[in-house]
Amino acid sequence: MNSINTLVIAGGTHGNEGTGISLVKKWMNSPSCYQDLCPSAQVDLVLSNPEAIAINRRYVKHDLNRSFSKTSLESNLSLYEFSRARELNKIYGPKGENTKTDLLIDVHNTGSNMGYCIILSALDPFTTKASAIIAHEFEEVYIYYQPEERMESPYFGTVAKADICLEIGAAQHGTMDPRFFYQTEKILKRYLELVEEWNQNALQQKPSLEVEVYTQYKDIGYPKTVKDGITAMIHPDLIGKDYTPLNEGDRVFVDFYGKEIFYHGKSPVYPIFINEPAYYEKDIAMSLTTKSIEKW
Amino acid sequence: MNSINTLVIAGGTHGNEGTGISLVKKWMNSPSCYQDLCPSAQVDLVLSNPEAIAINRRYVKHDLNRSFSKTSLESNLSLYEFSRARELNKIYGPKGENTKTDLLIDVHNTGSNMGYCIILSALDPFTTKASAIIAHEFEEVYIYYQPEERMESPYFGTVAKADICLEIGAAQHGTMDPRFFYQTEKILKRYLELVEEWNQNALQQKPSLEVEVYTQYKDIGYPKTVKDGITAMIHPDLIGKDYTPLNEGDRVFVDFYGKEIFYHGKSPVYPIFINEPAYYEKDIAMSLTTKSIEKW
Repeated sequence: MNSINTLVIAGGTHGNEGTGISLVKKWMNSPSCYQDLCPSAQVDLVLSNPEAIAINRRYVKHDLNRSFSKTSLESNLSLYEFSRARELNKIYGPKGENTKTDLLIDVHNTGSNMGYCIILSALDPFTTKASAIIAHEFEEVYIYYQPEERMESPYFGTVAKADICLEIGAAQHGTMDPRFFYQTEKILKRYLELVEEWNQNALQQKPSLEVEVYTQYKDIGYPKTVKDGITAMIHPDLIGKDYTPLNEGDRVFVDFYGKEIFYHGKSPVYPIFINEPAYYEKDIAMSLTTKSIEKW
Repeated sequence: MNSINTLVIAGGTHGNEGTGISLVKKWMNSPSCYQDLCPSAQVDLVLSNPEAIAINRRYVKHDLNRSFSKTSLESNLSLYEFSRARELNKIYGPKGENTKTDLLIDVHNTGSNMGYCIILSALDPFTTKASAIIAHEFEEVYIYYQPEERMESPYFGTVAKADICLEIGAAQHGTMDPRFFYQTEKILKRYLELVEEWNQNALQQKPSLEVEVYTQYKDIGYPKTVKDGITAMIHPDLIGKDYTPLNEGDRVFVDFYGKEIFYHGKSPVYPIFINEPAYYEKDIAMSLTTKSIEKW
């Protein structure tokens, strides 16, 4: 990417994820919180799903952050979130080469114990380099690389040329939690400073940093039967243990009678989004990743 | 109460509270889990809000556990939960002296760090004595006395002559968690044994036990303005600290700029339901209680 002229910071893409919602609201009320950090870019703030925010629920009719594929955006689907996605795409897109937005940072919460997880959908020169610096400067920051076919990706961030999704937790959906609020604000401010450094061609001159990168491998669902639905829970060994290695033969689920179910497959893998409440409906019990050291 | 002839165990009164839902489903599938523990009573199991359970959400249109007041039950309100409440009242009630149900145990989860909280709506001879025994035999059990004017109380339990509400947490809504599942099952089984002892007139002969009882004092809401809505979060000093004393001058909230807000009032009080996600819509930031030692 050349210079970053337009930057969008989004909260409330899910209406019950309090950190981004309260941060965006604060900055909308007090632009002095951020406006001097990145004078070379136009910074826009958006509360992505206002109707879901109003009822403190993830979404009204359909997950907004699964509504931004090219196919969805070109459809006439009338459910609220599909029409809101088209509206956001009109304001900040249109998705593709001619988008108005160079960088979109979307602030989410997760119920999983993922700390400050930076999700990158592409190996963009700015987002990788800036995120490596963030990972070095802040505690509990992790980098998750989840490559996306940009035009068909359903995520809001893919409306922009480049995007960063922050997933912050373990936070309970529907709450606001100061243990995450101030630290997230510091991370966002630091990203704005790094955008400015990028636009001054200063960041590009800095030496690469070694970072641990967790890369998407595959999702696994809950054990289930047609008759009973989900038949086992995440094993207590795993709950809260995002990013720790899972090996062949490790316990991964336990059923309601105490019978343990073991992991078989590529080893080691590093599960994240373990027991995320919003992913029960997507039949994702956890996402498995591989870990590597990269120089970014 | 004389003998307990009819007992109802309910899960899923809130459709995203996994412990009670999975327990009731397990026992429906495997009656041998419970049926020999209490042969002198008829034990019924119920999934209270099946439509909310199907979408893993607290409720569909209205909080079912706020739909059981005499006024609501006598209304013609057509929202799903009001009609489901009338249906449950027909099966297990009717609310009042002629109810078919002697005891109802309703299993809930809370996002607050409340352990195994036994909520009693009345000082009934069985529920107090049995709960004192449970509190002595199990770890992390607390007793919360929240007196209810029975006919106008909105809670499902008040359809029965006596009731026990279990609030189990900190559990994330929308999830199932083995760290609570097995222990809750043990507690429920023990209640069934105690019902049997009561019906044999054995429990009544046991000596009283000293127990700590937390009694409802008052709820407090979030600081808010008409323009901005909620303007402060629970203070990090308090999050997760249910049942710990709060005194005049202690920190209780912190706003988005870091300004602390202090408690003024009766001291000490013991907050519970701190930062419960489902209570944001009810404008309850926490419920204050007083603590006493009782002989039950």
